[in-house]
Amino acid sequence: MSIHTPLCELLGIEHPVLLAPMAGVSGGALAAAVSWAGGLGLIGGGYGDADWLEREFNAAGDARIGAGLITWSLARRPHLLDLVLDRAPAALMLSFGDYQPFLSRIRDEQTKFIVQVQTLNQAREAMDAGVDAIVAQGTEAGGHGGTRATLPFVPAVVDIVKEIPVIAAGGIADGRGLAAALALGASGVLCGTGFFASDESLASDNAKLTAVCGNGDDTERSSVFDIARGLDWPPDWNIRAMRNSFTRRWREDIDGLVRNLPEEQARFNAAWAADETDITAVIVGEAADLIKTREPAQATLHRMISQAEDHLRRIGRLVKPITKDRDIE
Amino acid sequence: MSIHTPLCELLGIEHPVLLAPMAGVSGGALAAAVSWAGGLGLIGGGYGDADWLEREFNAAGDARIGAGLITWSLARRPHLLDLVLDRAPAALMLSFGDYQPFLSRIRDEQTKFIVQVQTLNQAREAMDAGVDAIVAQGTEAGGHGGTRATLPFVPAVVDIVKEIPVIAAGGIADGRGLAAALALGASGVLCGTGFFASDESLASDNAKLTAVCGNGDDTERSSVFDIARGLDWPPDWNIRAMRNSFTRRWREDIDGLVRNLPEEQARFNAAWAADETDITAVIVGEAADLIKTREPAQATLHRMISQAEDHLRRIGRLVKPITKDRDIE
Repeated sequence: MSIHTPLCELLGIEHPVLLAPMAGVSGGALAAAVSWAGGLGLIGGGYGDADWLEREFNAAGDARIGAGLITWSLARRPHLLDLVLDRAPAALMLSFGDYQPFLSRIRDEQTKFIVQVQTLNQAREAMDAGVDAIVAQGTEAGGHGGTRATLPFVPAVVDIVKEIPVIAAGGIADGRGLAAALALGASGVLCGTGFFASDESLASDNAKLTAVCGNGDDTERSSVFDIARGLDWPPDWNIRAMRNSFTRRWREDIDGLVRNLPEEQARFNAAWAADETDITAVIVGEAADLIKTREPAQATLHRMISQAEDHLRRIGRLVKPITKDRDIE
Repeated sequence: MSIHTPLCELLGIEHPVLLAPMAGVSGGALAAAVSWAGGLGLIGGGYGDADWLEREFNAAGDARIGAGLITWSLARRPHLLDLVLDRAPAALMLSFGDYQPFLSRIRDEQTKFIVQVQTLNQAREAMDAGVDAIVAQGTEAGGHGGTRATLPFVPAVVDIVKEIPVIAAGGIADGRGLAAALALGASGVLCGTGFFASDESLASDNAKLTAVCGNGDDTERSSVFDIARGLDWPPDWNIRAMRNSFTRRWREDIDGLVRNLPEEQARFNAAWAADETDITAVIVGEAADLIKTREPAQATLHRMISQAEDHLRRIGRLVKPITKDRDIE
């Protein structure tokens, strides 16, 4: 069996599942694994490092993959757009910022252009810009995001953008989430946390273990990790990650973190080098509840499809025809 | 057609849709309307006022309804439990606090006991307490709530409590939300915002208008309205409502609000009396996106069921059998 939606047609894929371009985690191997399994892998260009991008595109080998970049960061390194487009990605996804300056350059290429949104106004802008697909991202997503939650946000975006395929993101890591997203009117899903602990993911061993052992209650949004990493994110978005001793120390004292920045950055960087996840950022979302093991990405994706099919059949059986007697009434 | 789940069996209802016991909004007329339409109406006892409860139980007439109370508030007015149980409610729902002291008294009655949870640990406690059903409430809900989002939270709760029916709450106001909740493994839904602007709702005319005209992006969680109303809510929960001039003034200056409390409470109360919704609390959730009109609750509920059926059929068709050729491969 398979689940076929207009998004599958648009992107030329078998299953309506995209790998979220997790910065530094969704490398070429993971993107390729998701694509070979029938979805579409997007490598996570993040803040943009030409060497990293070249290496990870190479690591994807012959796989047909796409890429995702952080828009406000791309604006500071616009040459990276050419680097990415020269690789002829199946799709380019931009998130967090103003993509208007890049529209005409992107439109010169064959790549499908996907924009991720966190508000209804952003969805309207993306529709007006003529994007090929829109990711409606809920606040339960790992990494950067806004305040809306996936379940009510997706149908509201669908009502606005109508015929443009909407991809649900945030909180989706198994077949139940995929089935729910389709029920909400989405044409597919974008999954980060679900693939974070994949064998092919570039996350560290301890980060994968922390994510698998943790749960959604243990994640929260804050700016702590952005400040510690010296990233000047616009105030519209902050980052969801696992709570740990570092976030507990600074969560309620951002001013204090800023005052102690050199020492705290050094401590954070040392912990990163040592893979100490009680201090570094394990960037997963509430779907941490639903990831139970390290495994190849293909196993995750195929289980997701098969579970979604099972759930769609199961809930289909809940719909009962009215009996003859009632029809006669 | 109809959608039949174990929750329908448990509660003796036709449709797996419960009216959220919105304090002061879900009165007897609204609860009765939802029950007569085939769901289960829960009157919103809120902080507990004996006269209000008596009046609203009377207003429900012969309808088979239930009730919901705020647990920490009930602990201060425990006699209200007898008042409610004497009405033989079809279900009693407790939210926000420790219900252990009331368990044996509730178990003496025929009523079904439902507990609303916002964390995985609360779900485990409710399972251990032997409750009849569990409401897994996401942060997108209007009114008081926690931080988890409905889409990833519901399946995580289902995985914990297994055979106990889980009712999804937060962000669900149409048939797409109901279908998604069932896909996630829920056995039904609890809807507040979806019925807030019903003809039978006790919300004011301006509050209904504000909710219908507003959208989910215009709601946010804070403690502003609790402080203004002099309610000492435990810190685990805050309240989602429409943003307005009052929340914009105090959102980032809670200390200032506390310092100016007498004046601000007077201003808030005067606005309440005058039905000025740019100052008072219009307590709806992100599902405000999905409510488009004032109408009888029955119309909302029946459209929800019929839309859910349509969507379940639609997504059922997305599941494609593999062709003979591929089977032979």
